[in-house]
Amino acid sequence: MQTAITDLFQIRWPIIQAGMVWVSGGKLAAAAANAGGLGLVGGASMDADLFRHHLRLAKSLITGDGVFGVNIPIFFKHAPDLLEVALAESVRIFFMSGGSPTMYTPRLKEAGCTVVHVLAAAKHARKAQDAGCDAVVAEGFEAGGHNSPDETTTLVLIPQVVDAVRIPVIAAGGIADGRGMAAAFALGAAGVQVGTRFAATVESSAHVHFKQAIVDAGEGDTRLVMKKLMPVRLKRNAFAERVMAAEAAGATKDDLSALLGRGRAKLGIHDGDLAEGEIEIGQIAGMIRDVPTVSEVMQRMVAEYQTAKHQLP
Amino acid sequence: MQTAITDLFQIRWPIIQAGMVWVSGGKLAAAAANAGGLGLVGGASMDADLFRHHLRLAKSLITGDGVFGVNIPIFFKHAPDLLEVALAESVRIFFMSGGSPTMYTPRLKEAGCTVVHVLAAAKHARKAQDAGCDAVVAEGFEAGGHNSPDETTTLVLIPQVVDAVRIPVIAAGGIADGRGMAAAFALGAAGVQVGTRFAATVESSAHVHFKQAIVDAGEGDTRLVMKKLMPVRLKRNAFAERVMAAEAAGATKDDLSALLGRGRAKLGIHDGDLAEGEIEIGQIAGMIRDVPTVSEVMQRMVAEYQTAKHQLP
Repeated sequence: MQTAITDLFQIRWPIIQAGMVWVSGGKLAAAAANAGGLGLVGGASMDADLFRHHLRLAKSLITGDGVFGVNIPIFFKHAPDLLEVALAESVRIFFMSGGSPTMYTPRLKEAGCTVVHVLAAAKHARKAQDAGCDAVVAEGFEAGGHNSPDETTTLVLIPQVVDAVRIPVIAAGGIADGRGMAAAFALGAAGVQVGTRFAATVESSAHVHFKQAIVDAGEGDTRLVMKKLMPVRLKRNAFAERVMAAEAAGATKDDLSALLGRGRAKLGIHDGDLAEGEIEIGQIAGMIRDVPTVSEVMQRMVAEYQTAKHQLP
Repeated sequence: MQTAITDLFQIRWPIIQAGMVWVSGGKLAAAAANAGGLGLVGGASMDADLFRHHLRLAKSLITGDGVFGVNIPIFFKHAPDLLEVALAESVRIFFMSGGSPTMYTPRLKEAGCTVVHVLAAAKHARKAQDAGCDAVVAEGFEAGGHNSPDETTTLVLIPQVVDAVRIPVIAAGGIADGRGMAAAFALGAAGVQVGTRFAATVESSAHVHFKQAIVDAGEGDTRLVMKKLMPVRLKRNAFAERVMAAEAAGATKDDLSALLGRGRAKLGIHDGDLAEGEIEIGQIAGMIRDVPTVSEVMQRMVAEYQTAKHQLP
């Protein structure tokens, strides 16, 4: 399976393990790298010291030709520090999300890095290309966690992004098996970024309750909420239901901010409070039924992809 | 291109032209049938007499082996009459939507018909199969017009429906070209139902302004609104923006009903009032740039499908 993305990152499979808050530490990134994909250490829940620890952990666990990088949300207060830590630790693959591609791309390109921006619209993909990015992740409405107010689904988004730019496109949102992967490639993507499926693996840092919440999720069990604040897809639980009720009653941005409070992602994902925490998972959780190793996920996806491809009429 | 759907309907291409209010009369259905797909006369905007007229029009325009059927929304007040009219006119392919599959399937199967139910959840697909349906249409969140409150996207929905039933699955929502078609087949669908792309064709009955509204739509230009009443995906216009503002302020079901009033779908689609009418189109309108013939659409889709298939890594 050779694509523009396997070439760009020098990886075996065009599968990227998404950076996920409280989920993707050095252990998960190393497992994805060792399984032939691209592992990402997600910086969103870390300060500089913790981030350095996880980068070193990833390096220590990676064997052979395993490749890893980082995901840094631009809006995050520690973003400038995390970026410098990663550069100092010789990381050369940067996935940047939640901000303008003009902000850090020049600095990273000067340092010889490969830069990928995460976005949810073709017009933003053009901006990323113009800013010098090497690839983009186009993420659809069905994805877990923070998301775009545009609500464009992966099926609709990918071909439009592919038509808008010359750089390779990585599809994200709603992909957890080889069928979804084949669908993404049919739409013109050169790689897939997979979140929720890797969150429910042995090597994920998430709490065991959170992994079980993914396994237990059925169809229709997630909702995009907090649309007036910062849209986020959550599993429906006591907290999410309160948010949905407040939104239905016309809650303002301030009301939502007060409801959210602080630390709910940590509460749900790291501490395993399935009632009051934010359970950031994608719609595709409805299809996930177990907690295997990362290597097992990767092998299944590649095998299922081949089957899906060869069954096409 | 042989699939369970081409076999079931004895059609050349596994492409179904969706039944669409004020859009899919006899002329559009005949064009789809003559181009090798399955044409559907949509009953939703018709009384018995008008429906009979359109069924006879379709029959008069179909040449050779062209195949057509009907789409009847079960909740529609004229549904029982439309069903009897179609049977009397020797129609034997029924796509039923918006209601329970147990309601009309026995009557239709007794009459020797092929029955397909339109739905948006795997659990409803199992019910349709149990009721004796021959196939299902699984329609995702990105589809235009009336939609499910579950918000499950096509990419997430199709594999779960495919895993849930033995009968063939037709994918709908977000499909307007051969890449989307290839994606649907990769997910396990045996056919695709295409709406918005066929609404913007020469043979569509919609007002020329409505067709132009599809061509002019960009990414992010539609929204699923009226969630407390009956969710419907509309192009953002003066009316839709009023609804969105009311919903953001906590509008009740009654408020929404008052805002909607009567006849707005006709106003937008049939009369071409792009400000105050309901412009029922799918997210994929962002990718539609012209108003070709149905035959041209069908030929493009099949050619693009072959390209997408052969470019898979």
